[in-house]
Amino acid sequence: MKKFVEELNEKIPSGAQLTEVQVEGSKIILYSKNPEYFSENPELIKTIVSNYKKRVDVRATQEILADPDKARQIINEIVPDEAGIENVTFVTEISRVIIEADKPGLVIGKGGATLKEIKEKIKWSPRVERVPVMKSKIVDTVRQVIYTDMDARKKFLEKLGKKLLTKSSSSGPKEEKQDYWVRMTALGGFRQVGRSAVFVQTPESRVLIDCGVNVAATGTKEFPYLNAPEFKIADLDAVVVTHAHLDHSGAIPYLFKYGYDGPVYSTPPTRDLMTMLQLDYVDIAQREAKKVPYGNKDIHELIKHSITLDYKEVTDITSDMRLTFYNAGHILGSAQAHLHIGDGLHNLIYTGDLKYAKTNLLDPAETNFMRLETLIMESTYGGRTNIQQSLEVAEQQLTEVIKNTISKGGKVLLPVLAVGRAQEVMIALDKIVKKESMSGLKCYLDGMIWDATAIHSAYPEYLSSSLKQKMLNENTNPFLSGMFHRIGGHKEREELITSEVPALIMATSGMMQGGPSVEYFRRLAENPDNSMVFVAYQPEGSLGRRIQKGIPQISVEKLSGGNEMVNVKLDVNTISGFSGHSDRNQLMNFVSNARPRPERVLTCHGESSRCIDLASSIYKTFKFETSAPKNLETVRVR
Amino acid sequence: MKKFVEELNEKIPSGAQLTEVQVEGSKIILYSKNPEYFSENPELIKTIVSNYKKRVDVRATQEILADPDKARQIINEIVPDEAGIENVTFVTEISRVIIEADKPGLVIGKGGATLKEIKEKIKWSPRVERVPVMKSKIVDTVRQVIYTDMDARKKFLEKLGKKLLTKSSSSGPKEEKQDYWVRMTALGGFRQVGRSAVFVQTPESRVLIDCGVNVAATGTKEFPYLNAPEFKIADLDAVVVTHAHLDHSGAIPYLFKYGYDGPVYSTPPTRDLMTMLQLDYVDIAQREAKKVPYGNKDIHELIKHSITLDYKEVTDITSDMRLTFYNAGHILGSAQAHLHIGDGLHNLIYTGDLKYAKTNLLDPAETNFMRLETLIMESTYGGRTNIQQSLEVAEQQLTEVIKNTISKGGKVLLPVLAVGRAQEVMIALDKIVKKESMSGLKCYLDGMIWDATAIHSAYPEYLSSSLKQKMLNENTNPFLSGMFHRIGGHKEREELITSEVPALIMATSGMMQGGPSVEYFRRLAENPDNSMVFVAYQPEGSLGRRIQKGIPQISVEKLSGGNEMVNVKLDVNTISGFSGHSDRNQLMNFVSNARPRPERVLTCHGESSRCIDLASSIYKTFKFETSAPKNLETVRVR
Repeated sequence: MKKFVEELNEKIPSGAQLTEVQVEGSKIILYSKNPEYFSENPELIKTIVSNYKKRVDVRATQEILADPDKARQIINEIVPDEAGIENVTFVTEISRVIIEADKPGLVIGKGGATLKEIKEKIKWSPRVERVPVMKSKIVDTVRQVIYTDMDARKKFLEKLGKKLLTKSSSSGPKEEKQDYWVRMTALGGFRQVGRSAVFVQTPESRVLIDCGVNVAATGTKEFPYLNAPEFKIADLDAVVVTHAHLDHSGAIPYLFKYGYDGPVYSTPPTRDLMTMLQLDYVDIAQREAKKVPYGNKDIHELIKHSITLDYKEVTDITSDMRLTFYNAGHILGSAQAHLHIGDGLHNLIYTGDLKYAKTNLLDPAETNFMRLETLIMESTYGGRTNIQQSLEVAEQQLTEVIKNTISKGGKVLLPVLAVGRAQEVMIALDKIVKKESMSGLKCYLDGMIWDATAIHSAYPEYLSSSLKQKMLNENTNPFLSGMFHRIGGHKEREELITSEVPALIMATSGMMQGGPSVEYFRRLAENPDNSMVFVAYQPEGSLGRRIQKGIPQISVEKLSGGNEMVNVKLDVNTISGFSGHSDRNQLMNFVSNARPRPERVLTCHGESSRCIDLASSIYKTFKFETSAPKNLETVRVR
Repeated sequence: MKKFVEELNEKIPSGAQLTEVQVEGSKIILYSKNPEYFSENPELIKTIVSNYKKRVDVRATQEILADPDKARQIINEIVPDEAGIENVTFVTEISRVIIEADKPGLVIGKGGATLKEIKEKIKWSPRVERVPVMKSKIVDTVRQVIYTDMDARKKFLEKLGKKLLTKSSSSGPKEEKQDYWVRMTALGGFRQVGRSAVFVQTPESRVLIDCGVNVAATGTKEFPYLNAPEFKIADLDAVVVTHAHLDHSGAIPYLFKYGYDGPVYSTPPTRDLMTMLQLDYVDIAQREAKKVPYGNKDIHELIKHSITLDYKEVTDITSDMRLTFYNAGHILGSAQAHLHIGDGLHNLIYTGDLKYAKTNLLDPAETNFMRLETLIMESTYGGRTNIQQSLEVAEQQLTEVIKNTISKGGKVLLPVLAVGRAQEVMIALDKIVKKESMSGLKCYLDGMIWDATAIHSAYPEYLSSSLKQKMLNENTNPFLSGMFHRIGGHKEREELITSEVPALIMATSGMMQGGPSVEYFRRLAENPDNSMVFVAYQPEGSLGRRIQKGIPQISVEKLSGGNEMVNVKLDVNTISGFSGHSDRNQLMNFVSNARPRPERVLTCHGESSRCIDLASSIYKTFKFETSAPKNLETVRVR
């Protein structure tokens, strides 16, 4: 670090009035008494970026920062009122000002002109955040946890930055390169759905991608193989999360509980959504008096160590690995993780959960990558018979079920994951109700769906281009449709269940492993006028799977404790077309369209037969080397 | 241990006069003042064996042992003179007497009657060893190292024995069994020939099978990946060696240098032969002023920690693994290692180097096993075109080369591995010379061939049944044929090279990576009247391979230092039929005949294309799951 600072000081002319050089993660921060010097001499930054292959941020030295009150006044003068500034926060430790506004675009201005003007006048480096149109406690909590102890955060980023300055042996002499290897170990979620965890190792780095729980399992099988001989929590350099669902993120706070104190990379929506799901996971475990694997304290540690990246933003995460997220199309903020390893010696993509088709909510997964040798892809619907209906058919089917049930005066229960399927179906319901003129029909949301929807409203940039257009430019937000009502507590739930008015009920959990959906099922199951609709994958061992299979008598846990035997008489439907997962054809199309073509495809995240079937079909069709590793297996990819 | 001793004391009647219970590795040793009690009540031992699944040895308490002088006299009285007793050694620490004799069979007597009589009269437990017909310094050294510090050896075996008393979780409740896994990691010698090392792991054991060096490589590529993240030398529970060649045993002393102090399991000939080769390896490295990876001290440590097993002798090596060696047909003492894992949850065979055909020296590899799920097999000649001539054709070809060269007055150079091919060819030469009545023809042996041959003479039980018959019952030893002469030093070598008398020269090393074969080649290469014959595999990168390829000008290292450019004019022949490796057909036949049939075959020990070709052909022919793992890959076999 010392050498690095000396080098930089030599390169930067005295006119720049450099006062301090810092590293914040993979970024170099230059503090200057004359920050304008750098905008006047843009070549200077370009040279530093290309020399160190790191992003550079110039900030003003504290002593030249405008007084906060004065600065606030200037901001309000420059930014038009329509921007709707709600909050301005000054973070002195890093010379930054956070401007929260209803319309961030108006704070930024055309080509960033407004922001530039603000910076020139107040010297603080501005950062603009959107005020969510729906109030979200989670988004507030996350922001609060991060900004409360800015000093600790700064220290964490500095420590990480220093580590990232280490030179990699992979860019060393040829002899060392020959000895260089890249391995991936399947720690969980291979030949199964649940507890996803991929461990990528080189001679100098140890990176974990995803670390989920299998909510349908118990005991040691709930968590990934964190006791694998080559894996030590304390030796991890980085954790990467592809999306928020608990089967990908649920065990990360556990890593912090057992000694991890490094960065967790995700997109911004993934950070917020996983926080929500993790807090709920702990809450449920506590309420059910189960063994709680970690506490809220550990979730807060995760937030403090979170580093968010937008899609296509390239970042060094270790001395020899560079991470880029690409849209995965699965849920809000879901990403494929691309690792550029060993100065280009190997390029690996782990798709996480993948939707290679346009949905109501999101654009299809990205298929264009800079480089690619190894593709690790999900196989939830990888079997040759796993073909889904189209979204149009799905909406038609849902319309039929709703019309049919309403005509009998019944209720439609939709067990959904709070994150993803709920919002996808909400948009569909909004469309259906308008199209069919069922204006009196209400849809009740129980569980965390409301909170999750609020987070969706906070990140319109991560939604499909058409939805983003609607929300940002046309000011229509389907989530705010009058048909949706939140179930706030026990009393409202009882009223809904006992009411004789036909209604739609969306409730968590989606797999009916706990959550209000189980109680609704228990209470609605014996009335044949009611119906239920599964829109998401039901893993082996879950209550949802048993109902789906058509078992006529099922023992169901009561909300008040104890079990009750239920005669299943309600109409059970499965609609596959709302899936957030690619079906078999979409998976094959994804492989076919991925550019550049991979050399090797490894399958994961599917029942054993599906992982094997997909691997074998990809080999036969494309002649890529393929395999379907088992948990605890290690594949050398270079 | 304490609990175990108490248990045993309860079970054994006081009439047995038990004085002490000890464990020696996987054996239980009962010291008694009345050892006859156990032979009079044979059910007692049987019960203990079946209860603890361990072998039991009853020995006399020290105080009742006959005085050594008196005992020696009694032994000489009982054993007939023709037995040729040369040495009687008393090892007081373990109440044993070692009787070395020319004809061990006569000391043992029919059905062990003589031995039994000895034991009853002197109380010492006798053990009979053969006096080698050829004097072997190595055999003497090994025996000396073991018996010198008997106290340390006893402590080592006791410590190991206590560890082996631990109960395995694999025999525990069903829940624990479900969590049980077995992995194998390729640490070296996969998709290559050289530095063989297979690491087998379960939740409770870590066993390394083979740990070789790649003599044709340099730097870090000479050794296996002992820095693999899941591997720690100090955590190893056991090391197993399948045969003595350095590519399988050469790195084991290195393990002792870096903290290993556990057992090394091998057959008795493998122990002696690898000691010889390791001492030579260090010696050569020192003479060539190379970096010496370990010293003689570490080799002695290996000997002290050696535990020898005969073929088909079953032994616990960890709390959940049982090892059995089976004949591999490759060289003297070569074995396939069978691991019975987790109380039968999995059975794995690693073939080591394999010859599945009768040779002059050995019987073909064993194919009948108790149980088998995973077969890890060598692929040296695994490519579909790798077909060898028969032994008959090979002998005919060799005869032609010899006759042809002699007629021109030239010399025949045979570069051979000291162990294996040398003895195979010696028997062939003995046959050829007799058949063709070339009685004046001499064959000179340079390098360690003489020592290696002496070790062969010490273990006739490990030779082919026909050879054993000849040596033990007909008293003919082809190795002692008058045609063989040892080159004792520089002067004799010079005389041989400059002499004008036609001759055969067998010299090490076989791959011409150092050793006198290189010097003979340099001096004989430019005379077209001379010829050379390759009888063994020449790995990529070796001098032998380059000569074999027909490169006309080759730079060769001089014995006196420096290099010389040599014009290769001598007649270069390759005869494949003497190979100690199975050819493609023999490998396929081995898989076809192996009983029970394996579920999975992993290939190793071959050039990449051959490992892949063999794996693919086995899959197509037998429909077993197959793969050709790479070094540093981990396969989960259960």
